[in-house]
Amino acid sequence: MDRRAAPVNLLNPQRTVAELRELRSLTADANGAQRVAFTPTWVRTRAWLRQKLEGLPVEIHTDAAGNLWATLRGASPKELVIGGHMDSVPNGGWLDGCLNVMAGVEILRRINAEFHGRPPVTIRLVDWADEEGARFGKSLFGSSACAGDLDMAEARKLKDRDGVTLPDALKAVGIDFEHVKDSGRELKQAAAYLELHIEQGPVLLDLDLPLGAVLGTFGVERHAITFHGQAAHSGSTPMNRRKDAFLAAGKMSQEIYAIAARSGGGVCTIGSCTTKPGIVTSVVEECRITLDQRHLDAAALARMLAEARSVSERFAQEGGVRVAWERLWQIAPRPFHPALIGMCDSAIGETCGKSHRLPSGPLHDAAEISGAGVPTVMMFVQSLHGISHNKIEDTREEHLELCVRAFDKLADKAMKWIAAGS
Amino acid sequence: MDRRAAPVNLLNPQRTVAELRELRSLTADANGAQRVAFTPTWVRTRAWLRQKLEGLPVEIHTDAAGNLWATLRGASPKELVIGGHMDSVPNGGWLDGCLNVMAGVEILRRINAEFHGRPPVTIRLVDWADEEGARFGKSLFGSSACAGDLDMAEARKLKDRDGVTLPDALKAVGIDFEHVKDSGRELKQAAAYLELHIEQGPVLLDLDLPLGAVLGTFGVERHAITFHGQAAHSGSTPMNRRKDAFLAAGKMSQEIYAIAARSGGGVCTIGSCTTKPGIVTSVVEECRITLDQRHLDAAALARMLAEARSVSERFAQEGGVRVAWERLWQIAPRPFHPALIGMCDSAIGETCGKSHRLPSGPLHDAAEISGAGVPTVMMFVQSLHGISHNKIEDTREEHLELCVRAFDKLADKAMKWIAAGS
Repeated sequence: MDRRAAPVNLLNPQRTVAELRELRSLTADANGAQRVAFTPTWVRTRAWLRQKLEGLPVEIHTDAAGNLWATLRGASPKELVIGGHMDSVPNGGWLDGCLNVMAGVEILRRINAEFHGRPPVTIRLVDWADEEGARFGKSLFGSSACAGDLDMAEARKLKDRDGVTLPDALKAVGIDFEHVKDSGRELKQAAAYLELHIEQGPVLLDLDLPLGAVLGTFGVERHAITFHGQAAHSGSTPMNRRKDAFLAAGKMSQEIYAIAARSGGGVCTIGSCTTKPGIVTSVVEECRITLDQRHLDAAALARMLAEARSVSERFAQEGGVRVAWERLWQIAPRPFHPALIGMCDSAIGETCGKSHRLPSGPLHDAAEISGAGVPTVMMFVQSLHGISHNKIEDTREEHLELCVRAFDKLADKAMKWIAAGS
Repeated sequence: MDRRAAPVNLLNPQRTVAELRELRSLTADANGAQRVAFTPTWVRTRAWLRQKLEGLPVEIHTDAAGNLWATLRGASPKELVIGGHMDSVPNGGWLDGCLNVMAGVEILRRINAEFHGRPPVTIRLVDWADEEGARFGKSLFGSSACAGDLDMAEARKLKDRDGVTLPDALKAVGIDFEHVKDSGRELKQAAAYLELHIEQGPVLLDLDLPLGAVLGTFGVERHAITFHGQAAHSGSTPMNRRKDAFLAAGKMSQEIYAIAARSGGGVCTIGSCTTKPGIVTSVVEECRITLDQRHLDAAALARMLAEARSVSERFAQEGGVRVAWERLWQIAPRPFHPALIGMCDSAIGETCGKSHRLPSGPLHDAAEISGAGVPTVMMFVQSLHGISHNKIEDTREEHLELCVRAFDKLADKAMKWIAAGS
């Protein structure tokens, strides 16, 4: 058997596209995908996934956090893990998360066929539970539990809009919340983790490239910034006597673009603005904006934050208002593994000629697994419109086929890397 | 009798201050004045006002719009009208509106005493009904009805927060809504209209002057400006790919200061800002701000509006977003009468040495009466803190006494002006 020719012959990317379409017809309605974690549709989705795995000599089990694992034992107990998530947001797209899993299924098939059920290393496919966090507002549930990164005290208190707690919802699908971190044992032999995903942004689209190697997930600093001025009558208060909280906030709208430009690859977003008293006849007394800052480099992220703070204080002083900062959330950058990034680049280059390295703005389960110390990389495939979490989410069919091919090549390289002692 | 000395001797400004305190004790609670129009407290206030007028040989009646008139017949049927309003906002101040009326009462007393009940021209005091519009959201009710400027179709539909219509509320106090404009006959002989008011702003306070002559009320252009961009993920969307509605709106926050500065005396206010979807993880798709622009000069106001429109379109284009304007409200500037402004200046100069001419940002009943073609002027007295519509609204006692003196001198000059054939 010619090992090098084999993947091309045994892999069937068209089958992946067909399976994704089949899944869509089973789990979407006119508003989009409805595979929200822990719902009946999600349970049905997993039953369908098990069916797809039936022909393979894999062991299948659900871990303590509800993640589904399919394991193809290899000559070495060292594991190559391929991950994704079958759950979606409500009214979601047809690719986010399940493309990853179904590409993994196809790669399992190829490896099984090529190595006659006994690859050099153990190959595992994982379907993480509740990546989206749509119901409880906490994303990356299954992977963070597995990575040991889940804040139990915080998660214990989470409730959905009907007041059902996360522990009670888990109980209903047979998961004991207090033991979810036992799933951590699944990673004991993990030597590499690979995840394919739609980009969910416009970078590859703008570059007219189908695929990219992901450098890591951005660190995030998320704050509320409140400017406190003074309400005053819009007719009787001279301009030079105003303490206009909206003036200071408005200045921030431009400054964050300058901060992002200086940061070398970071992004800043003011996503909301509220005003008090918020009436047409009064100068704004209080203006609250939210600022989301992201960068792949921790030091650069810290600089972006310091610059935003400093400039907000300057604008406040210029306008005779006060400013107060409140941290809403933060997470450190999760840079991926350099050797795996290189392999990902090569796999893309071999598949379609040109690769591109880019950071991931959104978080993914890969961030959790990388944080747990498992060498990790992701591959992105171009998103049409740069849009996801929406029924119009889409990727060209030829790009879907290319991504399965390139991701399979990456799996091949990673397997060999592990077998060689990584 | 020495005519020129008389006003000083017969006028008792301390009495006005004492009466205002008495009124406060009768109609305010711990949260401020509660003389909201058409309420029992307001009805009680008017009964108290009638008592104060009892010793004078005046005819008192309520007109078709609920305005209370006290008339001291003179040698000529031509009338000098002095106006104010006894109604307040809920939790209002102790001076707004009733200072005007009580100063008018004191001037009626002086003129009656000086001319032994028969002044050269007819002197009338009017207490306008519902200047504040606190209950139905429509200010200047009584004066606009009297001036013929009330939009009947609009007013007919007004409801308070309990769903009571304005016509029904008026009926309860004996006013037939469909005939309120009959009150216009009250102005047939009006030769001049004078109104004293607290400034409700900080201009006189900043200049350390007790009194000012008012040039007119600002014209107002009030618009909602909505920028339409595109929602996009805060992590995955490069800065140069964003269509950020908040960026364009934020730029407006500074530009309106430049527009006001160029306008020569106008003011611009962005009083509210709302964002959609308004979440921390998305670029703002839609940002709506309200813009209130005011100027005493109609052409300058039109220029301010045109500049704001033009700059909003430029910012929209720069940011790849659309902008839409919606007019919320407008009113033309109401410049006061030049001869009366001159008399007001002189009266102030004779009383306390230095006058200052300033426009009025807030609207007043005087704007309606001026709009009806009656020569009009207002006098402002300094406001402490520049604040009104609040229980902390205040003016120094010596300034209150000065304003009664100066307003009386203005009444004297206006009376002579009318008598001389204006």
